[in-house]
Order: sequence, then C-alpha cells, then structure tokens
Amino acid sequence: MTANRADDAAQRYRAILETAARIICAKGYEGTSMQEIADACKLTKAGLYHHIKNKEHLLVEIMSYGMDVFEEHVLANVRHIPDPAERLRRCMDLNVKLVTRRWSKEITIILHENAALAGEGSQRINARKKAYVRFLESSIEEAIASGQFRPVNATVAAFSFLGMVLWTYKWFRVDGALSDDQIAQGMIEVFFNGLLAQRQPASRLKEVK
Amino acid sequence: MTANRADDAAQRYRAILETAARIICAKGYEGTSMQEIADACKLTKAGLYHHIKNKEHLLVEIMSYGMDVFEEHVLANVRHIPDPAERLRRCMDLNVKLVTRRWSKEITIILHENAALAGEGSQRINARKKAYVRFLESSIEEAIASGQFRPVNATVAAFSFLGMVLWTYKWFRVDGALSDDQIAQGMIEVFFNGLLAQRQPASRLKEVK
Repeated sequence: MTANRADDAAQRYRAILETAARIICAKGYEGTSMQEIADACKLTKAGLYHHIKNKEHLLVEIMSYGMDVFEEHVLANVRHIPDPAERLRRCMDLNVKLVTRRWSKEITIILHENAALAGEGSQRINARKKAYVRFLESSIEEAIASGQFRPVNATVAAFSFLGMVLWTYKWFRVDGALSDDQIAQGMIEVFFNGLLAQRQPASRLKEVK
Repeated sequence: MTANRADDAAQRYRAILETAARIICAKGYEGTSMQEIADACKLTKAGLYHHIKNKEHLLVEIMSYGMDVFEEHVLANVRHIPDPAERLRRCMDLNVKLVTRRWSKEITIILHENAALAGEGSQRINARKKAYVRFLESSIEEAIASGQFRPVNATVAAFSFLGMVLWTYKWFRVDGALSDDQIAQGMIEVFFNGLLAQRQPASRLKEVK
C-alpha cells in the first residue's frame, strides 16, 4: 500500500468511528444495530464487518479514539506543568472544554457506556481511565505536601474534580445561558477556593445538628 | 377491594419495579427485554402487561419511585433547615448516602437512563429533577446574600454539587477503601472550604500561564 492509500484507509476508518459514535450517542449502545451503522456509513453490513470485527469491537475502538483525543488535548498539555496547583487548574479548564466542544460524542460514549464493555478491551480502556485518576490524586498529594493545598483526602478530591467536570455532559447546552468558559472558571473557583466566606475547620463541618 | 388486598397489590407492584430495576441496572434499559423482566418476576409476559402498560411506562414508574425515595430521604429532611449553608451540608451528606446505600439501583437508573425517556413521562421526571437544581441554586443564592458564601455563580456551584455527589454512582464500591461517610465528609470539605491553603482572588485563578 502506498502512503496515500494508507492515509485514505485511516481516514475512512475514522469516518466510520465518528458516524457510529453519533448514532450510539443519540440512541445508546444497546439501542443501536450494526445495520443502522452500516446504513449511515453508506456501507452494506458485510462492508462494515470488513472494517469492524463486531459491535463490541466497535465500542472499544470509539472509546480508544476518545481516550486518544483526551490524552492529546488535555493530559499532554498539562502533564509537564511543574506547579501542581497550576497543573490541576489548567487540566480542569481543558477537560471541561473537551466535554463541551467538538469531540463531545466520543467523550460522552466513554462516560456513558462503560458498563456495556467486558473483557480485554474494557480492561485497556479502564487502565487509561485509572491512570487519569492517579494523575489527579498524585497532583493533589504533591500540592498538599508543598503546603499549597490543605490536607484533604486526595482520592475524594480527585473524584470530586472528575464529577464536577464530567457531569457537564449531562446538562451543558451549546445554546444555554452559560458559556463553557464561565463553567470552567466557576468550577475552578469552587474547587480551589470553596464556597464559604469564612472557612470552618473540618470538625465543625462534620457536626450534624 | 379491602384495605389488605390493596396493600398486597401495592406491595406486588413495588416488587415488580424493584426486580425490573435490578435487571435494567445490570443490563441497561435498551439491553433488557420485557420477557426477561417477566421471567425474573415469575410472571408470564401477559401477566406482566397486566401491571405495566409497556416498557417505557415501566421506566417512568421506576424513575418516579426513585424520585419519591429521593424526595422522602433527602429533600424532606433538609428543606426546612433555616440556615442555607447548613441545609446544603446536610443535603450533600444525605444525597451521597442515597447513591451509595440500598436504593442505589433505582437512583442509578434515574441518573443513567435519562436519555431513554421521551414524552410526557419524561417531562414529569425532568420537572422533578429541575426542582432539585432550583432548590440548590436558591439555597446558594440565599447564602451569598447573607454573606455566608462568597459571590460565586450559583448555577455552576449547584451543578458542581450535583456532579460531585451523583458521579459517585460510577466509582463507589461497597468493598472499596472509602466509606460513604468519608466520601460525604471529604466532598463537604472540598465544596465548602476548597483546596487552596491560601485562597486566591478569582482574577488570579483565571490567568492561564
């Protein structure tokens, strides 16, 4: 195969993944048939199976593509920021925008369809997700060790970060009242500074009246 | 019908919803057939249709039941707390525990299957969800007005609260390292006090280096 023909093939493959992602995003993984995906790609079902082994393989491929995009557009841009608080701040900003901007359908499938996967494919995707949780936890631990952060539970803080940011896929509307910039800045405010005007010791926050 | 027979019928109906919720939670709404639900309920398919109009009606009924549980176990216990910060703190604690404790399957379906619903049933569920968002927003606005909270964006803060708390259904494990009490307290710490040891003005948080 010449370089051009290989490029064409790669592009055609990506177009199939993007079309399939659009349909699965709208109808859910279980609610989408391979026939519908073939129709939308203007392929016969046999033609589609020439590219994709089976439906589960298709889901793994879409999620892998989404993780590639995430790693390229978020992680690769922040991983080497020396200051851990600054690293987390940039990471929150970029991750909100990944959810709200043009790759949202692949990202939504990663976020929504995790239960649909089993076996080896799912293990590879889950390992990449866990690496992100570990990256957040260790950045938080580093900021606690340097005295920039208060001594919070780093695991809970990491999942709080993820919950705030990733839940956005459920409620963000492109034509809504809030821009993604306002959302990212508002979340950075909550996560870094908290809501109370006068902070209270954890022991007081624990009292249940 | 005597009172006893009405009670029996209500109990049988709830048992059907709980069984269906367990299966839908494991296999997804689109991946579950009415035949499977009938089998699990030890009913014929016709017997199941005696109780439930169709599959979408079943989903609406499970979500309504989940919203009843949420309103009874969370909202009803906090709505009348006069101090808005205290109200939000109690609400976060109870909502985390609703997600992690015994009603988790009905709650998971509300959180996960929202896209599967259309029509009038979905409107009623969405109105109840929106009322919760409004309750959080107005509690936050009240605390800002009284000077207890800093002047954050109340909508972003409300969805940050929801994201932190509700995302828990994706990662919490009963046999995991963190108890639900540790999770609830850790999230209250993040939401109320924030992570930074020395708070920074919003303008400084906005700088992208």
